Amino acid sequence: MISKRMRPLVENNSAIRVMFEEGKRLASLYGVENVFDFSLGNPNVPAPASVNQAIADVLREEDSVTVHGYMSNAGFSDTRKAVADSLNRRFGTDFGEENIVMISGAAGGLNAVLKAILDPGDEVATFAPYFMEYKNYVANYDARLVEVPSNSETFLPDLTALGNAITEKTRAVLINNPNNPTGVIYPEESIIRLAELLSAKEKVYGHAIYLISDEPYRELAYDGAKVPFVTRYYSDAIVVYSFSKSLSLPGERIGYVAVPDKAEDAKDLTQAIVIANRVLGHVNAPSLMQRMLVRCIDEETDLNAYDRNRKLLYEGLTECGFQCVKPEGAFYLFVKSPTTDEIQFCESAKKYNILFVPGGSFACPGYVRIAYCVSYDTIKNSLPAFRKLAEEYHLK
Amino acid sequence: MISKRMRPLVENNSAIRVMFEEGKRLASLYGVENVFDFSLGNPNVPAPASVNQAIADVLREEDSVTVHGYMSNAGFSDTRKAVADSLNRRFGTDFGEENIVMISGAAGGLNAVLKAILDPGDEVATFAPYFMEYKNYVANYDARLVEVPSNSETFLPDLTALGNAITEKTRAVLINNPNNPTGVIYPEESIIRLAELLSAKEKVYGHAIYLISDEPYRELAYDGAKVPFVTRYYSDAIVVYSFSKSLSLPGERIGYVAVPDKAEDAKDLTQAIVIANRVLGHVNAPSLMQRMLVRCIDEETDLNAYDRNRKLLYEGLTECGFQCVKPEGAFYLFVKSPTTDEIQFCESAKKYNILFVPGGSFACPGYVRIAYCVSYDTIKNSLPAFRKLAEEYHLK
Repeated sequence: MISKRMRPLVENNSAIRVMFEEGKRLASLYGVENVFDFSLGNPNVPAPASVNQAIADVLREEDSVTVHGYMSNAGFSDTRKAVADSLNRRFGTDFGEENIVMISGAAGGLNAVLKAILDPGDEVATFAPYFMEYKNYVANYDARLVEVPSNSETFLPDLTALGNAITEKTRAVLINNPNNPTGVIYPEESIIRLAELLSAKEKVYGHAIYLISDEPYRELAYDGAKVPFVTRYYSDAIVVYSFSKSLSLPGERIGYVAVPDKAEDAKDLTQAIVIANRVLGHVNAPSLMQRMLVRCIDEETDLNAYDRNRKLLYEGLTECGFQCVKPEGAFYLFVKSPTTDEIQFCESAKKYNILFVPGGSFACPGYVRIAYCVSYDTIKNSLPAFRKLAEEYHLK
Repeated sequence: MISKRMRPLVENNSAIRVMFEEGKRLASLYGVENVFDFSLGNPNVPAPASVNQAIADVLREEDSVTVHGYMSNAGFSDTRKAVADSLNRRFGTDFGEENIVMISGAAGGLNAVLKAILDPGDEVATFAPYFMEYKNYVANYDARLVEVPSNSETFLPDLTALGNAITEKTRAVLINNPNNPTGVIYPEESIIRLAELLSAKEKVYGHAIYLISDEPYRELAYDGAKVPFVTRYYSDAIVVYSFSKSLSLPGERIGYVAVPDKAEDAKDLTQAIVIANRVLGHVNAPSLMQRMLVRCIDEETDLNAYDRNRKLLYEGLTECGFQCVKPEGAFYLFVKSPTTDEIQFCESAKKYNILFVPGGSFACPGYVRIAYCVSYDTIKNSLPAFRKLAEEYHLK
């Protein structure tokens, strides 16, 4: 008696989440130290100590009714101002609190934005590979996610393909920068050309085409790589951000949406996002986390920990003969499967207690995603297992 | 460029929320002590001290990565077990953790349940007056909320009217007990007869008709009134609960859905609710609050504070000549407007800095909702203003 719409989702549950449950099962069988679970983007670096301290301070110093209470659906005024000020300081933008909507993580924010702009039959274009939930988010509003290939060498946007994919029905282009699952960062040049293309298409079709940039990994950029801030390059840009990764709070569901004044119908759009967020049952972003952010807005995670993992795993895997694009951001390696059927490759890996996610789960078969947000020791200890796996496929 | 579907919502934003913003505006003009804002169900009783203590203890004692991290989308296993055990102790049920899904407040839970069961064109019946967001929640899934009148004297379910309203398309009946906005509690007799009716209708139509009981006010029952636990009376019952009111945490977005084993397709249904919750962007209920609940599951709010408010306001208003059903639960008085146009009544009240919500916002014009989850002093100080308002309408 579940809905017809939900049936395929129940039958074909998220491969990542199934893997997560499988990882827990294997850990209980073999001990957590003997399972190399690279399946989930759950940060292993703890939240900065200042975050837990700030939560404790908020509870001690602020009025409990306010701390845990309803606020304007868009979020506490001072939290939104802290976010706006931080963005302005870092990116030279000119956001005010009225441009910021606090939301329950990027997943909540994307849903609120998509509900605000989509009607049945509308289209949203995104570059494959992409986080598979995008498809479900867009389908929630009876619209269609249109997959556009990335450049197969660099995994950067293929703008010719995007140009061909945009139609009268395209309401938004959704990007994820730094990218899950590839770890690639779209550089300024890509964003400039993307903005030019979208501006031209807006003129052709006579309506806004929003560029929605999903940026939970913004702060995870290595070797000094810069992640361009899209509202500086394109007027109809919307930034969806989560503190899940930057402050290691994925379970807390806290983030924001930023809508610049220059976006078409910016005021109505912001209001629509607030209301969409409310009627989807989010109501508001969790209040204690909003209070914490006023004190911790510029706190940073231990990037160095991920960077060490990245280097060790990337070098370890390439030494074994695996191929992958060198990741500049996020905490994923997107590794070419040594056999076209990457699901079989995932199954083989399980024999060595290695868990990762098939690329098919990101609309990109033939690859696997390895999340290196695990302990350094897990990576170190997994390398002999990876070596055996490589030998099984006669790499090198 | 916002979606056609969202336009009416933006144009006709929640009257309650508009009032909330108006209250903040008046408070900044006249001082918070001179504004009698009865518009929002935002508990004024602080969270029990043990809740804040438990949060601090969790942060100090538990592993930070776990506390703030992803867990199974349904919630932490020990949190769900704590909920199940508490329900079993109090209501003689036999829930296990697999029957419980942690959700971000009742609003999030209702959305997850409705998405799990509704297809386009389906119908959900509810008794007017009702919390107006129900309409938006059901519309999110392209289904239709069917309003059924309550008994106009008692505001208890009119089962004859419900019987006539149920059709082949009815997938669920949604009740809110104790009731917002009337403060009425549906007694055991009502639930028994409702269950009989639904069982008969299930046989007629050959499919499950779920009884969804929205119960954020369960713990707010006065004079020893009992709120029947619906799964004891009907197999296809689903309980949606929030700790917003019972622990004064409305901003934190924490609650649960309970699905009994005997519900049709219980396992698939539970899984569908978990997945619906995920794809709507809730992903999981906020993790720190889930950790807190393991330690605070049986904590109680200061019911006595609301009870004092209830008595003072009910007596004060009836003495002035206002009419209302004596509230047994929640923290609302549903007062008959002295003029048929209750919006004009609300406007008149504003002259005395009294804010409350027109009954039209609950599909019940001719009444107003007064939320008495405010300080005792606010109520005491508001009584002279209410007296002037009564005089304006020549009551008594």
